[in-house]
Amino acid sequence: MTTPEPMPAVLQAARFGIDYPDMDAEHAARLRQDQLTKPSGALGMLEELSVWAAGVQGQCPPHAFEHTRVVVFAGDHGITAAGVSAYPAEVTAQMVANIAAGGAAVNVLADAAGVGVRVLDLSVAGDTDPAVSGYKVRRSSGRIDQEDALSRDETEQALAAGAAVADAEIDSGAQLLIAGDMGIGNTTPASVLISVLTNTEPIKVVGRGTGIDDAGWTRKCAAIRDARRRAWPHRDDPARLLATAGGADLAAMTGFLLQAALRRTPVLLDGLVVSAAALVAQLATPRIVQWLRAAHLSAEPAHELALQRLELVPILRLGMRLGEGTGALVALPVLRAATLSLARMATFDEAAVTTREPGTQA
Amino acid sequence: MTTPEPMPAVLQAARFGIDYPDMDAEHAARLRQDQLTKPSGALGMLEELSVWAAGVQGQCPPHAFEHTRVVVFAGDHGITAAGVSAYPAEVTAQMVANIAAGGAAVNVLADAAGVGVRVLDLSVAGDTDPAVSGYKVRRSSGRIDQEDALSRDETEQALAAGAAVADAEIDSGAQLLIAGDMGIGNTTPASVLISVLTNTEPIKVVGRGTGIDDAGWTRKCAAIRDARRRAWPHRDDPARLLATAGGADLAAMTGFLLQAALRRTPVLLDGLVVSAAALVAQLATPRIVQWLRAAHLSAEPAHELALQRLELVPILRLGMRLGEGTGALVALPVLRAATLSLARMATFDEAAVTTREPGTQA
Repeated sequence: MTTPEPMPAVLQAARFGIDYPDMDAEHAARLRQDQLTKPSGALGMLEELSVWAAGVQGQCPPHAFEHTRVVVFAGDHGITAAGVSAYPAEVTAQMVANIAAGGAAVNVLADAAGVGVRVLDLSVAGDTDPAVSGYKVRRSSGRIDQEDALSRDETEQALAAGAAVADAEIDSGAQLLIAGDMGIGNTTPASVLISVLTNTEPIKVVGRGTGIDDAGWTRKCAAIRDARRRAWPHRDDPARLLATAGGADLAAMTGFLLQAALRRTPVLLDGLVVSAAALVAQLATPRIVQWLRAAHLSAEPAHELALQRLELVPILRLGMRLGEGTGALVALPVLRAATLSLARMATFDEAAVTTREPGTQA
Repeated sequence: MTTPEPMPAVLQAARFGIDYPDMDAEHAARLRQDQLTKPSGALGMLEELSVWAAGVQGQCPPHAFEHTRVVVFAGDHGITAAGVSAYPAEVTAQMVANIAAGGAAVNVLADAAGVGVRVLDLSVAGDTDPAVSGYKVRRSSGRIDQEDALSRDETEQALAAGAAVADAEIDSGAQLLIAGDMGIGNTTPASVLISVLTNTEPIKVVGRGTGIDDAGWTRKCAAIRDARRRAWPHRDDPARLLATAGGADLAAMTGFLLQAALRRTPVLLDGLVVSAAALVAQLATPRIVQWLRAAHLSAEPAHELALQRLELVPILRLGMRLGEGTGALVALPVLRAATLSLARMATFDEAAVTTREPGTQA
């Protein structure tokens, strides 16, 4: 048994402060969907997404999330020393520079969607530009098969950093947020957290990450198994879980998600890593899930387990496994199409179209 | 046995004229994908779509299909007299007017994607605006459980109409075409064609269309069974199939698809009805499928059978079942994201990012 510790401020505020979306707006959206010039339900998942959009915005019809922002949380992980990734750890800092320079997939896809990108170094091993390292907690998180990822103080600092970034983005007008990830080795702590929080055997959560070979996959299995053993006793304590088996990037993402929900701002979840953070946030307060939607199902096996536990149905299933927020950016136009169809289609009355007549033409 | 008939001109031109996409451009696209700053394959289906885009455009990197057009083929079907739809047939003309006025789902989604919409009355029962009825072949196609949908001449006329529309759109600069459908009862002939061309029992292809009840579903089953019996002897003759069990809208869509491919212009397939036309086009010349991609999997059971026969994997699976081209318009941003990521991402060299080192960190 560990001695009880006070809950970090971000978790405490979220637990008592996160509200439900607006049920009246959801109801109005459902009613309006049935008046539009199409068979009821014919837009499939777009209709559900439009109802969710109305609820989280508190208005019907909803706007199209014109002001969306993606924040990429970058960090290295000591567990890469165990040989769990196909790429060397130096790539994290290089990719942070690539994102800052606009050359990564997230930049291209964000640009296509009219979305701004911010990249933050939470725990990159190397040096990064001061413009992205303002919230840096440490150099690389700990090697979680042998030691904690973070100290207690570092965990609180990372949670607070994520919350502060959410606040700043929302204060600047963001209507929808996307959290992206960048970090060689980050699928390993994410898979550990998902393994613990879905009570799943390690072997079932281990994926290929950036494309590891068979020997590396075996090493990754062992690392996840050992880290999971260390994390398991803390499975009811979100802060301890992040400290034991997460990392500064994962903790910051968790704070980001919780603060967004506290501020009634929805988040479109990307892939494996942010979904692991969402599971930790769900452990802190289940109500947060109302403010989240899953953009896509990644090729990583643990991702499906996480989404099942969150009870979220992914919008896309494209076999993507890149992170950075890329899956969410590809799904964003689908979410926008959902809101636009609800907002702009003519009703049967407006268009003078005959509605169905049960019992006549059936 | 029927006496051999000369093949309609559109089918003949397509059979001998449709070429393969550009394999050199496809190869260049595959090479470039592996140089971009991401793990190989990490963009999943986006990578395959980018290779296809390069091939059909004959250039690498490909453009983003900025000039896309959707053409909605409208027609009524005599089979509605058998009570196979949840809506009365008058709705077709009303919805044509709604589309022409900009109030339908296709208009809203096309507007969001920056795509122009054209609606054409091929065989609507009622009167429509002269601006949309220039290619009208007849008033409603025949009741296919008892009689042919079209005469031989009408079939040729509809095929030629679709080809002429494709020519006009391509001559106006369209880089990608979408065919949409609008017509109460049109899932019945589409399901008959799919049942015949995939050699599937009628019961397995019958869907709920716009939302028919159980009694209507039983009537639809019987109608499809009877129409299929009439169509089956013509299963190797695309023109006879369209005449026997299709309709002027389906024949025009078939001509549209074939002419697009002949003109080296790709088509993003929407749902059930246009996929039935694609199967007929495939029967005319299998090579056409190289120029097609499936936008989505609709909720109609026959759609999956059609896509399997076409060997096309749908981009989206959103449970949509509206037609009009709506599914293709929701998928279009995904296709564009695929082209943009290939065209605009930095390479490992450009960004000075270390590539993976097999045998070292892996």
